[in-house]
Amino acid sequence: MNSSPLKTAVVGATGYTGLEIVKSLLDHPGVELTSLTAKVDETVGIHRIFPELSGRLELECSNLDVDDVCRKADLVFLALPHTVSMLFAPRFLQAGKKVIDLSADYRFPAAADFEKVYGAEHRDPAGVEEAVYGLPELFREEIAPARLLANPGCYPTAAVLAAYPALKAGLADPGEVIVDAKTGVTGAGRKASLAFLFPEVNENFKAYGLAVHKHTPEMESVLSRASGRKVRLEFAPHLLPVNRGILSTVYLRLEKPAGEDEVFELYREAYAGEPFVRVYPPGRLPELKDAVGTNNCLLGFKVNPRTRNLIVVSAIDNLLKGAAGQAVQNMNIMQGFPETSGL
Amino acid sequence: MNSSPLKTAVVGATGYTGLEIVKSLLDHPGVELTSLTAKVDETVGIHRIFPELSGRLELECSNLDVDDVCRKADLVFLALPHTVSMLFAPRFLQAGKKVIDLSADYRFPAAADFEKVYGAEHRDPAGVEEAVYGLPELFREEIAPARLLANPGCYPTAAVLAAYPALKAGLADPGEVIVDAKTGVTGAGRKASLAFLFPEVNENFKAYGLAVHKHTPEMESVLSRASGRKVRLEFAPHLLPVNRGILSTVYLRLEKPAGEDEVFELYREAYAGEPFVRVYPPGRLPELKDAVGTNNCLLGFKVNPRTRNLIVVSAIDNLLKGAAGQAVQNMNIMQGFPETSGL
Amino acid sequence: MNSSPLKTAVVGATGYTGLEIVKSLLDHPGVELTSLTAKVDETVGIHRIFPELSGRLELECSNLDVDDVCRKADLVFLALPHTVSMLFAPRFLQAGKKVIDLSADYRFPAAADFEKVYGAEHRDPAGVEEAVYGLPELFREEIAPARLLANPGCYPTAAVLAAYPALKAGLADPGEVIVDAKTGVTGAGRKASLAFLFPEVNENFKAYGLAVHKHTPEMESVLSRASGRKVRLEFAPHLLPVNRGILSTVYLRLEKPAGEDEVFELYREAYAGEPFVRVYPPGRLPELKDAVGTNNCLLGFKVNPRTRNLIVVSAIDNLLKGAAGQAVQNMNIMQGFPETSGL
Amino acid sequence: MNSSPLKTAVVGATGYTGLEIVKSLLDHPGVELTSLTAKVDETVGIHRIFPELSGRLELECSNLDVDDVCRKADLVFLALPHTVSMLFAPRFLQAGKKVIDLSADYRFPAAADFEKVYGAEHRDPAGVEEAVYGLPELFREEIAPARLLANPGCYPTAAVLAAYPALKAGLADPGEVIVDAKTGVTGAGRKASLAFLFPEVNENFKAYGLAVHKHTPEMESVLSRASGRKVRLEFAPHLLPVNRGILSTVYLRLEKPAGEDEVFELYREAYAGEPFVRVYPPGRLPELKDAVGTNNCLLGFKVNPRTRNLIVVSAIDNLLKGAAGQAVQNMNIMQGFPETSGL
Repeated sequence: MNSSPLKTAVVGATGYTGLEIVKSLLDHPGVELTSLTAKVDETVGIHRIFPELSGRLELECSNLDVDDVCRKADLVFLALPHTVSMLFAPRFLQAGKKVIDLSADYRFPAAADFEKVYGAEHRDPAGVEEAVYGLPELFREEIAPARLLANPGCYPTAAVLAAYPALKAGLADPGEVIVDAKTGVTGAGRKASLAFLFPEVNENFKAYGLAVHKHTPEMESVLSRASGRKVRLEFAPHLLPVNRGILSTVYLRLEKPAGEDEVFELYREAYAGEPFVRVYPPGRLPELKDAVGTNNCLLGFKVNPRTRNLIVVSAIDNLLKGAAGQAVQNMNIMQGFPETSGL
Repeated sequence: MNSSPLKTAVVGATGYTGLEIVKSLLDHPGVELTSLTAKVDETVGIHRIFPELSGRLELECSNLDVDDVCRKADLVFLALPHTVSMLFAPRFLQAGKKVIDLSADYRFPAAADFEKVYGAEHRDPAGVEEAVYGLPELFREEIAPARLLANPGCYPTAAVLAAYPALKAGLADPGEVIVDAKTGVTGAGRKASLAFLFPEVNENFKAYGLAVHKHTPEMESVLSRASGRKVRLEFAPHLLPVNRGILSTVYLRLEKPAGEDEVFELYREAYAGEPFVRVYPPGRLPELKDAVGTNNCLLGFKVNPRTRNLIVVSAIDNLLKGAAGQAVQNMNIMQGFPETSGL
Repeated sequence: MNSSPLKTAVVGATGYTGLEIVKSLLDHPGVELTSLTAKVDETVGIHRIFPELSGRLELECSNLDVDDVCRKADLVFLALPHTVSMLFAPRFLQAGKKVIDLSADYRFPAAADFEKVYGAEHRDPAGVEEAVYGLPELFREEIAPARLLANPGCYPTAAVLAAYPALKAGLADPGEVIVDAKTGVTGAGRKASLAFLFPEVNENFKAYGLAVHKHTPEMESVLSRASGRKVRLEFAPHLLPVNRGILSTVYLRLEKPAGEDEVFELYREAYAGEPFVRVYPPGRLPELKDAVGTNNCLLGFKVNPRTRNLIVVSAIDNLLKGAAGQAVQNMNIMQGFPETSGL
Repeated sequence: MNSSPLKTAVVGATGYTGLEIVKSLLDHPGVELTSLTAKVDETVGIHRIFPELSGRLELECSNLDVDDVCRKADLVFLALPHTVSMLFAPRFLQAGKKVIDLSADYRFPAAADFEKVYGAEHRDPAGVEEAVYGLPELFREEIAPARLLANPGCYPTAAVLAAYPALKAGLADPGEVIVDAKTGVTGAGRKASLAFLFPEVNENFKAYGLAVHKHTPEMESVLSRASGRKVRLEFAPHLLPVNRGILSTVYLRLEKPAGEDEVFELYREAYAGEPFVRVYPPGRLPELKDAVGTNNCLLGFKVNPRTRNLIVVSAIDNLLKGAAGQAVQNMNIMQGFPETSGL
């Protein structure tokens, strides 16, 4: 660890993800938080927006001024909407800063992929080429030297970690993957909206984005690349009446019979030494609440010999392993900090 | 009941209260629902906004056109924001229609009272003079012949019914009433807002509007008038993480010792024959869920001889007895329908 | 409708399902509720157990006395646990009563099927032979003359109605059906239990019973019989932190390409004239809250041409269409009442 | 801090409070957790009961064996039911251990007080005489040398900290205090129970224990002792549909006029230097969620000059400042650790 702490900034600090980054950095022994920005009417103490920070952090949050952030910080977290990050990331890189971007802007291998999925012109194709996809369990070695890191989507994190070992090992058919995922409401962000009012979500549950959700190509792209097989999957997201967490039920078609002990061994080995993946033994399944509040991805599974399906259940906290926690984990790898610092 | 059904309109049909009026009217044998209006981008089937109405109601909802409503309906429910109702109520009255207004615009005895509390000029002082306050348990005889009815606020309904018998009987000190009230989130209406997003309300609870909530003078005004004594009360509203319902805990200071049997007798007698008030015997208290979905006001109480307090707990559904249900009850009284029709 | 009302009893009246049967019967113009029984410490007014019934029903609930029930009622709802119904149903039938059983005891074609799935000896094999499976949309003609009716399981109702048209029409592969279902907590019944305490369920979500849930063979049996094809399905139930409702996401593999208009037409026709099934047009999906509080089964779907999956989403209220409401619907058919009476 | 860590045991580790003690101790640099006991069917890894501890703690939980605990630990947390702690505390004290008891058994000044309130004979009157009441903000100096510490009740912690400064300063009438408190469901403990099933609590809210709740005399006793005035208060607890937290609305009658700045100064000074009390400035009130997950007591207030009431709102996490967190805070004081260690 460096003797003087790393100076960090959070751009987009007033969202749910921004808050979680702030809280992790406050607990991090190797980091100093020096700058917070967001779209605000006027500069305001961050503890006024998030009273739970009262007494823990006295920093003010102001509108983004790239030069000012560059003066104050050496690593910048961008917690901005899609298509906005690409406008600012290059400027921070040019100033010699490291960037961890939590939007989708740099998650695809090429700008054209992004443009096809998000229907918007990419303004920083060179950045796309340079960026590293920050799922440590699959790409840790590429992450360490990265200057521009693309933090994975919340759903892809939960789904990819669940499906990867079986696909990689040739155990499951890469053409018949179904991901039935359920997310808490913070996944929709912190912005005024009729659809996410309490009485609209509470005592309710629904599917949305069937067949068209933009995380589908991200999952397919990452799983194909990591498993070396062309993966085609059906992704069906649902909205849960809880604040936090994603639980994904992933249906994999076994290409050959496999026992639960064999699957357990496969998954345990795939994630051996991983500080944030827990594989449950046969007979136990993770619940959402066991992942919430942690940076863990919990994995459990069931083999149904009658249908020849392998069902993998994964649980993460969408704001931590699905966003802010994974971003800090990536920072730790990029900086040579202990990977669990602040988490 | 009239041989041909009463034609009714709901102005402001896309809010939570509007929906409940619609549902009550659909169940009402003496009424036909002929017109729905709201601020909408374009005319749309009401079942598209509220899918639960699919198959039950084919009516369209369009922007308000007073003349059109007047052609179609003989009684109009105004489920509009405060200070908006006063702009339209006179026009419906002039056209010979009856009006049941669910805003605060006509709840005070004089326009000056409204102006003091709501900080806005009243545009229909004559209407204020004519309007009848629609709390049937206290003012049924005035309601029957009314043309313009002011439907009570949700909090005042719950608090007034809880405190009235003890104040009227001289049992409790009118100068020391405390109403600690807790409401479900639909009480805030159906509009996009950061404060009422699911993650802001869920797993949370808070007080708001202490000492300044606008329902305080409404409660004091109604209780003073009904009890014949000058009532001064402290009203403290709180926001519950539930969709519906108000539970109020009302602290009354006994002016003389009283046993629970005596209080029970007093309350039972005060509400004898009331179709929508239930007084629980000593030893039992109403819970919120027992009132939700009904037009009932449930009342229970405890006498604490040590502190000389009488604590009355009242529970209502804020959208029914606290708004739409009471509005339909008032319509029934005004039209000579059985008081429980549609409820 | 008969001139004198049908006398009915509810055996097992203190559970969530029992309460809903009681409420439906109270609203039913052709029925009189004459007897309530349950395991109780002492005979007690049902409104003491369910205060929401206060003022609506004065009936007492006592321990089951078959002779007493037979004296009072002509049709008996059995809301009893599995393996208990079979002990009492024959006695009511012998006394000339009609029986609507809400347990699993009579849902299979033969006693041996039940014994295999539930691991218990069946004590009334003759009853199993006689019993009719009460899913009106598929078996209405058999229901009308039934004396002993087996009310379907909550999950099977939601899943079968979602999958049936596509399987029957040969559109989907009967060997590759996946039902990812999510239920509210009342599905677990009303009994003291650590696992269903509020803090264990709230802000949580989990899968359970993967590959082994007892509703799987019920679904396969009914779908196979109704579609004329051997159906094999994967059923994965999950527990939602809501009181009521089941939303099922059903994945069907298309055997030939199909457009959404074609699927819509197929489903609309399959359920034409059904009072309690609503098929949503392409582009809209049902949400849980739109079904809760009704006896409806709402169906929506999405075709994914890329994966060749047809995804059908169905929503029901687990206590109504999934239990009590469907039981009353069956009673209506058996008695010649209008099918929607009381619902 | 001692060079070798303090060895600690948690007796009653499988409840919600026990879990929170365990989690705090795991984060505590000066402490080693060496023994966990509870009523269990068989010895079991604690992570099997609380999967969120997986990978963090490998300790087993077995039935209580006092001698075994004495061999392993030097300080014992008793998270046991009332009237059970008193059976074991003396044995640990006799073995030279320090005891922090989270039950009510040692909270009163004399055994007779306990017996009057709890209706059970006290089996350890000497312990009652010795025990120190562990509310650090009021009694820190007595806590430091204590061997037997009585951890305060959750409700008393929230209420006493809210009312104490105004009563101590003679600002408020000690004879007219009203505490309207609302708690999350974990306050009821983790035991199978019909009343705390999810569907009974969710979408519900209720008052309970009016005039008779056993925390009333605890509040009065502590406030009277700390303020030097005889306090008589009305305490009305309510059950919130949330997992954690207590929000109390405390009504105090001003004995003389006071402005909000004056009250703010009074409270700020009363809690100057306190690491876990935050006083909000006039115009802001604490919300439940800002306290949950922390050991803080948040205080805000409103003066109503019209009614001459001072309304103080306090928010705590019932499992932390209301139980486990305060217990660890007390341990820190007793051991000379930094007061915020592990918290």
